[in-house]
Amino acid sequence: MLQAALRSGAASRRAVFEVFARHLPGGRRYGVVSGTGRVLDELERFRFGDEELTFLRDHQVVDESTLAYLADYRFSGDIHGYAEGDLYFPASPIMVVEGTFAESVLLETLILSILNHDCAIASAASRMRNAAGGRPLIEMGSRRTHERAAVAAARAAHLAGFASTSNLMAGHLYGIPTAGTAAHAFTLLHDSEKAAFEAQVASLGPGTTLLVDTYDVAEAVRTAVELVGAKLGAVRIDSGDLGAAAQEVREQLDAVGAFDTRILVTSDLDEYAIAALAAAPVDGYGVGTSLVTGSGVPTAALVYKMVARETAGGRMEPVAKRSVGKPSRGGRKRAYRLFDEHGRAETELITTSDVVPEGGVPLLRELVRDGRTVGAEPLSAARERHAEAVALLPLEALHLARGYAAIPTEFA
Amino acid sequence: MLQAALRSGAASRRAVFEVFARHLPGGRRYGVVSGTGRVLDELERFRFGDEELTFLRDHQVVDESTLAYLADYRFSGDIHGYAEGDLYFPASPIMVVEGTFAESVLLETLILSILNHDCAIASAASRMRNAAGGRPLIEMGSRRTHERAAVAAARAAHLAGFASTSNLMAGHLYGIPTAGTAAHAFTLLHDSEKAAFEAQVASLGPGTTLLVDTYDVAEAVRTAVELVGAKLGAVRIDSGDLGAAAQEVREQLDAVGAFDTRILVTSDLDEYAIAALAAAPVDGYGVGTSLVTGSGVPTAALVYKMVARETAGGRMEPVAKRSVGKPSRGGRKRAYRLFDEHGRAETELITTSDVVPEGGVPLLRELVRDGRTVGAEPLSAARERHAEAVALLPLEALHLARGYAAIPTEFA
Repeated sequence: MLQAALRSGAASRRAVFEVFARHLPGGRRYGVVSGTGRVLDELERFRFGDEELTFLRDHQVVDESTLAYLADYRFSGDIHGYAEGDLYFPASPIMVVEGTFAESVLLETLILSILNHDCAIASAASRMRNAAGGRPLIEMGSRRTHERAAVAAARAAHLAGFASTSNLMAGHLYGIPTAGTAAHAFTLLHDSEKAAFEAQVASLGPGTTLLVDTYDVAEAVRTAVELVGAKLGAVRIDSGDLGAAAQEVREQLDAVGAFDTRILVTSDLDEYAIAALAAAPVDGYGVGTSLVTGSGVPTAALVYKMVARETAGGRMEPVAKRSVGKPSRGGRKRAYRLFDEHGRAETELITTSDVVPEGGVPLLRELVRDGRTVGAEPLSAARERHAEAVALLPLEALHLARGYAAIPTEFA
Repeated sequence: MLQAALRSGAASRRAVFEVFARHLPGGRRYGVVSGTGRVLDELERFRFGDEELTFLRDHQVVDESTLAYLADYRFSGDIHGYAEGDLYFPASPIMVVEGTFAESVLLETLILSILNHDCAIASAASRMRNAAGGRPLIEMGSRRTHERAAVAAARAAHLAGFASTSNLMAGHLYGIPTAGTAAHAFTLLHDSEKAAFEAQVASLGPGTTLLVDTYDVAEAVRTAVELVGAKLGAVRIDSGDLGAAAQEVREQLDAVGAFDTRILVTSDLDEYAIAALAAAPVDGYGVGTSLVTGSGVPTAALVYKMVARETAGGRMEPVAKRSVGKPSRGGRKRAYRLFDEHGRAETELITTSDVVPEGGVPLLRELVRDGRTVGAEPLSAARERHAEAVALLPLEALHLARGYAAIPTEFA
């Protein structure tokens, strides 16, 4: 595409591309904007070096004039986007890229890869946060997804409300609190469960979390309390009927005065399993597989579509394809959220007009101006924004069941 | 775990960890071993440098003696595994790691992340290959998954039978043939569809693939044939009822003598949609979302479990936890595939004995000896092995419907 457009001269035409979802997959009520910060980071690094150019030349992927263009490539246009952590709904233009066709079309895969992954994980994580009702969630899914996706997943989960992650690289890169517990292998390594618990407490102190389901849960809890007493930080249960097991363990702990020893549960938890444990005496959830796979929705269905371009005459003109069953709306969009008299979100308003609707909160902010990043912010800001945005949704938005978007998208 | 085991002294005990799947998720008939080569590559690079150590020290994640251990870390043990591209079934020990507890337990996340991702993608890709019945498949899913997972997904897809990928980095790193087509934005950029087609053919020659569903398919095909004639390489249809559209386009092309112009289809294809197009005049499939998300099974459910460890007395002893509902079998395994008199695979035999069963083909091969990689091979070898292994399965293994493993796993 780039080579042909360079040859026809159309490559230098101004163009506007928008990132949006035609629908919210999985019957979700809202999507979560996540990955914006990663897009900005990667944009700084998105260059074609000698290694890449040599490959493209040796394999005759593109011609010499295209290689020359790529060698000098640096995005010099503008990007606006929804603030990271904010919510989105069908057709919300969560990122708007403006520049020449050539410089903008090259960003499609980079931007979509990051946003499709991160938004999918954050959207699942946000549902888990709602289901957990204030109890802390630990992200433990690194082993269940690609080794680099795991780091991004931990970031998206923290943005959407997870308290901590077991991924140390995510702790290092993004300042997310890290947490972990021992595995069954640690208990099995020692000559007895008691020896394993002793070793762990000797090294990590009484506040540590002991895994109690390697052999027999009741016996393990007895051993743990005998060794550590009421100062034991937590126990983890990783199998069986977690609610029933937690109830028994709680009674066992309370009977010996270990009222402050917490009970953590893990084992294929998703938002539904978490919700089902609401009445159980559980103090925290470790979530792995279902988090990093988006709990049934591993990709966010976001697309990157050209909505306007310069004509031969130099005028900007809205464009849209007419493909069957894939609606697209031409023209560069503005987006506003409208709230009712109680301050609850009511409508997602998308418009191609410059007129600001009364009471509408503008959702697009400047991220990149003339190729320079101007909209970077710490992950903590996105995390706070997300909690605030969810709190302003109608209550039915927290329903876990499949359904429609929590607020309607209207086009003006 | 590492810190506590270093302190208790158990860290230096010999241990055996095995990677296996307790079941094949999604009712799949077989799993595909993929990622072995990436594990070997990453193992060479798996070190803790100053940056990582400083993070761990500053955040008090581990103590000084653990930091010292990590600073010198280099896996020095042995790894055996199923050959890449081979198949696996429930309980197949697809990778066996032997070393000290400390050096082996550190590899859990690295190995599982790679294998859980790559096996999931390859297993889905293999089903698509079966459904395509010899027609070429192009991997086009980069935009729908994490930016680095996309490169690994292209590798796994090629291993399992995809002809090519649109991911240029995968072409560069793994020598996979690359292919791509123009997007709707390219057509929309130009002042007419004809101008876009002219630009593309001028730059890429008549053998290029023209996208014909931006406005009206029949009109686009007419324009394409008028411009290029019967030498037109291919057209791509990306929306609507692909089978019906392909039929109409084929008739239109044949009517003007463009018998060799191929028809490529894309648009949310998965193995079921591909199978449903078997009778349509389609010459190739581009697959995106469903491939990179494992077509409903985005992670392979592989676990990394310690199955044997050295006792205080220096003897190796099988171990297994007794957690409810999560069966594990202790002891280091050997695995063999048994074939019937027609050469069809019949049984996956797993044993802790050293006795080789009559006619059994051993499935574990040496990958790493004393920390050195000895089992590396080109991706093409894994690709050929995969095609051969599928050809030896019972025919019912190619059923797309949910069901049981194609051959039973037996324990001796």
